[in-house]
Amino acid sequence: MPVPGRLLPPPPGGPAVTAPSDRGVLADRIARSAADPGDGTAGVLGWLADLAQRSFTTAERVPLEELAGWKTDPRTGDLVHDTGRFYTIHGLDVTAPDGPVPHWRQPIIDQPEVGVLGILAREFDGVLRFLLQAKAEPGNVNGLQLSPTVQATRSNYTGAHRGRAVPYLEYFQRRDRRTVIADVRQSEQGAWFRRKRNRNMVVEVREDVEVREGFRWLTLGQLHGLLAVDDVVNMDTRTVLACLPLTGAAMHEGDGPATGGTADDGFREALRRSARCADGAAHPTPELLSWLTDRRSTVELRTRRIGLAETDGWRRRDGRISHERGRFFDVVGVAVRARGREVDGWDQPMIAAVGTGIVAFLVRRVDGVLHALVHARAEPGFVDVVELAPTVQCQPDNHIDLPAAARPPYLDEVLRAAPERVRFAATLSEEGGRFFHTRNRYLVVEVGPAGVPEHPDYRWVTLRQLDGLLRHSHYLNVEARSLVACLHSLRHPNRGES
Amino acid sequence: MPVPGRLLPPPPGGPAVTAPSDRGVLADRIARSAADPGDGTAGVLGWLADLAQRSFTTAERVPLEELAGWKTDPRTGDLVHDTGRFYTIHGLDVTAPDGPVPHWRQPIIDQPEVGVLGILAREFDGVLRFLLQAKAEPGNVNGLQLSPTVQATRSNYTGAHRGRAVPYLEYFQRRDRRTVIADVRQSEQGAWFRRKRNRNMVVEVREDVEVREGFRWLTLGQLHGLLAVDDVVNMDTRTVLACLPLTGAAMHEGDGPATGGTADDGFREALRRSARCADGAAHPTPELLSWLTDRRSTVELRTRRIGLAETDGWRRRDGRISHERGRFFDVVGVAVRARGREVDGWDQPMIAAVGTGIVAFLVRRVDGVLHALVHARAEPGFVDVVELAPTVQCQPDNHIDLPAAARPPYLDEVLRAAPERVRFAATLSEEGGRFFHTRNRYLVVEVGPAGVPEHPDYRWVTLRQLDGLLRHSHYLNVEARSLVACLHSLRHPNRGES
Repeated sequence: MPVPGRLLPPPPGGPAVTAPSDRGVLADRIARSAADPGDGTAGVLGWLADLAQRSFTTAERVPLEELAGWKTDPRTGDLVHDTGRFYTIHGLDVTAPDGPVPHWRQPIIDQPEVGVLGILAREFDGVLRFLLQAKAEPGNVNGLQLSPTVQATRSNYTGAHRGRAVPYLEYFQRRDRRTVIADVRQSEQGAWFRRKRNRNMVVEVREDVEVREGFRWLTLGQLHGLLAVDDVVNMDTRTVLACLPLTGAAMHEGDGPATGGTADDGFREALRRSARCADGAAHPTPELLSWLTDRRSTVELRTRRIGLAETDGWRRRDGRISHERGRFFDVVGVAVRARGREVDGWDQPMIAAVGTGIVAFLVRRVDGVLHALVHARAEPGFVDVVELAPTVQCQPDNHIDLPAAARPPYLDEVLRAAPERVRFAATLSEEGGRFFHTRNRYLVVEVGPAGVPEHPDYRWVTLRQLDGLLRHSHYLNVEARSLVACLHSLRHPNRGES
Repeated sequence: MPVPGRLLPPPPGGPAVTAPSDRGVLADRIARSAADPGDGTAGVLGWLADLAQRSFTTAERVPLEELAGWKTDPRTGDLVHDTGRFYTIHGLDVTAPDGPVPHWRQPIIDQPEVGVLGILAREFDGVLRFLLQAKAEPGNVNGLQLSPTVQATRSNYTGAHRGRAVPYLEYFQRRDRRTVIADVRQSEQGAWFRRKRNRNMVVEVREDVEVREGFRWLTLGQLHGLLAVDDVVNMDTRTVLACLPLTGAAMHEGDGPATGGTADDGFREALRRSARCADGAAHPTPELLSWLTDRRSTVELRTRRIGLAETDGWRRRDGRISHERGRFFDVVGVAVRARGREVDGWDQPMIAAVGTGIVAFLVRRVDGVLHALVHARAEPGFVDVVELAPTVQCQPDNHIDLPAAARPPYLDEVLRAAPERVRFAATLSEEGGRFFHTRNRYLVVEVGPAGVPEHPDYRWVTLRQLDGLLRHSHYLNVEARSLVACLHSLRHPNRGES
């Protein structure tokens, strides 16, 4: 009996979304954009440098006591905006009996709003391009970075900033004349944000779109090239890119035969197979989900909101809040003076991590299919206890006091990897709107022939499996999503332009 | 290039889970069990009645003040166990600016533990059977109901009850010699529980299993027959059955040709198509997920824990807590005296709903594929703001004070449906461990040729789509899961035994 196809028109006002039968077509279109280097990376970097010269944004550290518009609650010590909006920094009491540190207290950012991180897509001459913005954020080490078309908190677009309208926002709000390619809420840093989620969207339009000053259409191949450059593709762009349906393309993406090529060719072919095939996974997806259900059901992590003044082990002095041993992060004040932002200037508290962290996937080939080693990791700010995280996610200095048994698993494998096993390395910034000069070294390291030991909190997964999980909320944490974007950038040889 | 199959053995201690290539096989095995009436329903009902005669469990209403082992916190008014374990009843302040009632306060149960609801499966003569337990729960209207093999809170199995070991629990805890068929945490009543989740598991064993007194192996077809009988299949069994991978079977389940049969034959064929086909959905799954992301990003529902004594509109008197207009539910005390339970007797507070609620799916055929109308519904106890709920889920009397515009959508279509359009109707109990004599009328109503109006908070979905969502947590609420189990029970004609 024939199976009917799509039968009902979408309801009035409902979104037009790529139909299931079009998914393969969409995957092919995304693969084609990934294979297209566009006009290269050098031109984009020059454009960014040029814009930076004409930008007048400055961000200066100021004492927390001098932040205009912010106050310290006299009862709790919490840092709150005078209007009660935007976000609050309060304290969190964390009990984690299963972890190396069973109890601690810390400052944490509470921003209950769900913002929009949206990238507009449009086809030009048969190739999808994505509209990126050269955006100055107060926390950026280098002024401008490439951000999504729209990066807006709810306060932004409901007018709490009393600023200008957010450009292009209407494409992500209205439900007609567009195709939704990705639309999923995802968590952000669970160590620094309490239950923060943003809506990651990619929306395709078919009409002409005005390109405003500071915006530029880029192919996915261009973005992949730019990911390898330090501090260029910002965190919000990376997470949205990771939420693109990047796998399942039928087309062959090779630039040449996979056999008989260089060692890099072999790696790339294993990566492409990992993205292409639903089979070939070391652990079938139902088993992976059962393992995660088990971790989420048994790992105990209890959190309780406390006043910022109650965070034992942290001290407020010299205009900032720091850990008594100088570890983890500081809460600092920043005064922003900017032209070309929603408002002309503002002050805000931010988190400034101490030192540069390590965020790394160990990867290995299993019968020709690349697998990444994910960690079922509990973080105090997660909505749902445990998410899948990179193999290693830490600032090594934070762990030097702990006993050897509490050293993060696989850290030494990453730090001591032979250079030819490091498949990706770049220092990338965390969100410049909340984190001040906070960067991580993002690495993809291929395991040597000796392999690595198994660990019950870790599993080997394919890119196709990760892509399937990224259709849903709260499976991959933000650091893992950044690394997924980086991994996909290795599908094509670096054309050596940057 | 050939795609390699499953390559790595599971890690030591890891679960054995049905591999992706076996999913079709598993769906066929489940379909075969659904098609098998076993030894009918009459024998099971007789067995239940017989066991009930020999059961000595009694549950009696007692004033909250007289509950042994429970106390009222003098500061908050909360009902807490002397040990601080099990669960607490406190107050919740709810702000829901988008709903018909923008603000209210209510009592709510806080039970942060994740319990296990597990059904053991085993193949006998080529047909999967499931091990059910005839269990007395204090809230049951009729003594015994069919519960999962294991229905255990963490307190149960960590010994907080100081009772006997939970039979069969080891099959759900150990990770060897078993196949996991389903393993996913799901929410429970979001109106009465704050962020309650249970782990829904179905585990297949190949070895012989001792059948203890009060347990019985049943085919899925038998369970489907029993679902049509009032108050027999308990809520925990219904939610676990809904989490079985029930769709995607290749085998044809018909009992005869689908064309030229009765009106019921046509309905069943549309139901089977809805379960079998990935295509044919009115809204492709990515569109459905985008709609849900939108609802979850924009619906505002803020909750704040308050003391039970602060729940304005509720009064504690005559040994219970009631709404001042006699609506919604009461918090009551129950004294349980039981033989054959973990301990010989205990007291507990429970929620007793006022009146019998309506839980209904409107369904319609769209070019031969049955679709159910789901509601993106916000409930204060949900972990994630909104879940997919039945078309109608309410106690009609609770809404008689509200203006006509605030009347639950589609309620009248359900209440006024012609008898021949009511495809399923049974009065089923909510969880007897927390809810006292709390029942809903579960209905599946087929829409007439005139159709029903569209509503932006509702969408038509296929059974195959619901089944895909049920692989993940927090998409379908517990009432919708019960109805999914009921819908699947209509795949085969009622053999008229009960």
